[in-house]
Amino acid sequence: MAEITLSSESYKHNFHLISSHIGTDVEIAAVLKDNAYGHGLEQMSILARECGIKSVFVKNYNEALRVSEYFPHITALYGMPEGDFPQHIAFVINQKEHINLLPKGTKVELKVNAGMNRNGIELGEIEDFITSLLARGLELVGVFSHNGYGDDIDEAFTHTQERFADIKECVKVLAIKYGFALPRFHSLSSSGAIRMASERGISDDLVRIGIALYGYLDVAFSNPISPHLRKVAALYADRVSTRTLDAGARIGYSGCTTLEYPSRISTYDIGYGDGFFRVSERHKVYTAKGYQILPRSSMDCFSCLCDEPRICVFDDVSDIAKAFGTISYEILTHLSPSIKRTII
Amino acid sequence: MAEITLSSESYKHNFHLISSHIGTDVEIAAVLKDNAYGHGLEQMSILARECGIKSVFVKNYNEALRVSEYFPHITALYGMPEGDFPQHIAFVINQKEHINLLPKGTKVELKVNAGMNRNGIELGEIEDFITSLLARGLELVGVFSHNGYGDDIDEAFTHTQERFADIKECVKVLAIKYGFALPRFHSLSSSGAIRMASERGISDDLVRIGIALYGYLDVAFSNPISPHLRKVAALYADRVSTRTLDAGARIGYSGCTTLEYPSRISTYDIGYGDGFFRVSERHKVYTAKGYQILPRSSMDCFSCLCDEPRICVFDDVSDIAKAFGTISYEILTHLSPSIKRTII
Repeated sequence: MAEITLSSESYKHNFHLISSHIGTDVEIAAVLKDNAYGHGLEQMSILARECGIKSVFVKNYNEALRVSEYFPHITALYGMPEGDFPQHIAFVINQKEHINLLPKGTKVELKVNAGMNRNGIELGEIEDFITSLLARGLELVGVFSHNGYGDDIDEAFTHTQERFADIKECVKVLAIKYGFALPRFHSLSSSGAIRMASERGISDDLVRIGIALYGYLDVAFSNPISPHLRKVAALYADRVSTRTLDAGARIGYSGCTTLEYPSRISTYDIGYGDGFFRVSERHKVYTAKGYQILPRSSMDCFSCLCDEPRICVFDDVSDIAKAFGTISYEILTHLSPSIKRTII
Repeated sequence: MAEITLSSESYKHNFHLISSHIGTDVEIAAVLKDNAYGHGLEQMSILARECGIKSVFVKNYNEALRVSEYFPHITALYGMPEGDFPQHIAFVINQKEHINLLPKGTKVELKVNAGMNRNGIELGEIEDFITSLLARGLELVGVFSHNGYGDDIDEAFTHTQERFADIKECVKVLAIKYGFALPRFHSLSSSGAIRMASERGISDDLVRIGIALYGYLDVAFSNPISPHLRKVAALYADRVSTRTLDAGARIGYSGCTTLEYPSRISTYDIGYGDGFFRVSERHKVYTAKGYQILPRSSMDCFSCLCDEPRICVFDDVSDIAKAFGTISYEILTHLSPSIKRTII
């Protein structure tokens, strides 16, 4: 059966590489949302905990419950709880209605828009939101933003950081005015954190590291980290069937590959039903060893001109992402959670 | 939270439409593999059982266990069991090693290559495989193939059907020679079954209906079924945040959408981390009501120029599949199993 292997050594290497770059004054939180970017939520929680990570960000209530025993600080980025939950799970306030959906005493983080114009409230709304959530008896443990310009050489990155500095000042004033403990502040994910640590240092309390911990950092600026990251996940497929065919034989749906020479050919048990992208006539996609995945791939398998019992589909998804005209994150997050994951 | 609704009425309509076209002499089996083509394995099992479906095909051992209480005949198409299993689950033999991996008494179906040159054994190997599996004490309940030319106007479809007729004759002769009960024969999935029923009738015991039961049948030939199928699944996303922005405001990662006019804009809780394809600058993708999903979509959300609390992303995925240069099946199967599914 197909399998995703997860290298413990690579993950820990990445963690130490990033943390030595970021410095010791800033907490490193792991972003485990979306099944840990497709790597496997439980498996990556084990590795993150072994690195001493205390704070994590997950997608929602369901993911938060699945990792609740691993970490003392868990934030569910989207949606509200749908039942009971342990007290160390925090929920994110993105709009006014969220405040009344949470029981008294719930930890919350307030998301503020610093220029990405996607999620979060506006700077001018902070006081209203904070007084409302205090009146409701919620505990404000974080105020955060997301700098969506971290990957690019774009002055909007700096403007966004300046706006977040304003947001922090605003909250500090309100903390004195209303007498609440200062929440933690965070605005940077992998690319932004690495960039700020290189350029002028990080003034936030925490950085949210997602994709870089998994070994990827596709950014437009040069930095000392990208070349040394190691990919954590590798995808393996097992052989379903092997045969030798004559030149001219047609393979797969609509017979859209035709053999030029007599060939030994096998099918392997990964298809687009496993979340791996569908290889059509428009794509040239190769496995880690360079075997072409012949078009068209099926829902449950693909064919290659080889007969190895197990092949590595990828140990670095970057080239495959390019072949499909997308980014590594999309290929990784789409991988079905039903594929077996094994820490090695 | 985002939700996939599953129309019980549409599913039953499709079942009755297809079964009246196929006739009563042929059993209709439901293909539930890959989380029921992304629709939800448990939910679609409930609907299939309500239609009186007795035989189903799932991807593997894990899916078979999840539906074991719903159906008397379950076939796991790929892989071998990894533990105990109820006796009514059959496994598919694709290569010789599979025979020795199964305990005595296990029900098996033998996959035979009829021209797709993908999975299955060759016609000339049937006797060897059948004697081996009988010697092992396995119970041969099915012999099947897959006609991969069902969607096309291609004479390879007819040649493949002729080869399957030869396969059936071969097995019938062997049944007499070795004294085993005739297994069930099947070679046709949605497109092939509908085509054969229109053209000259189906001589198999069973047809495997997957995508057509879910309301899709994208084929190159005209037929009386496609126009009347009803889509079973609709995807809904809930609002995360809303704001009003000035002309010139930039939205999302790298700010790659710029507003032409002052606009009311919201984010919704579906992103590529949910298995929905990533909308980049290269794509023009619209929701069911015609709101553009603004590039770039994020891992957990997308933005639209509207402020409805809940929007229907699609109730027919065909146009979205075209916008991403792929087929409906791929969009559907990639939808994360963690999205809530509700039968309506």
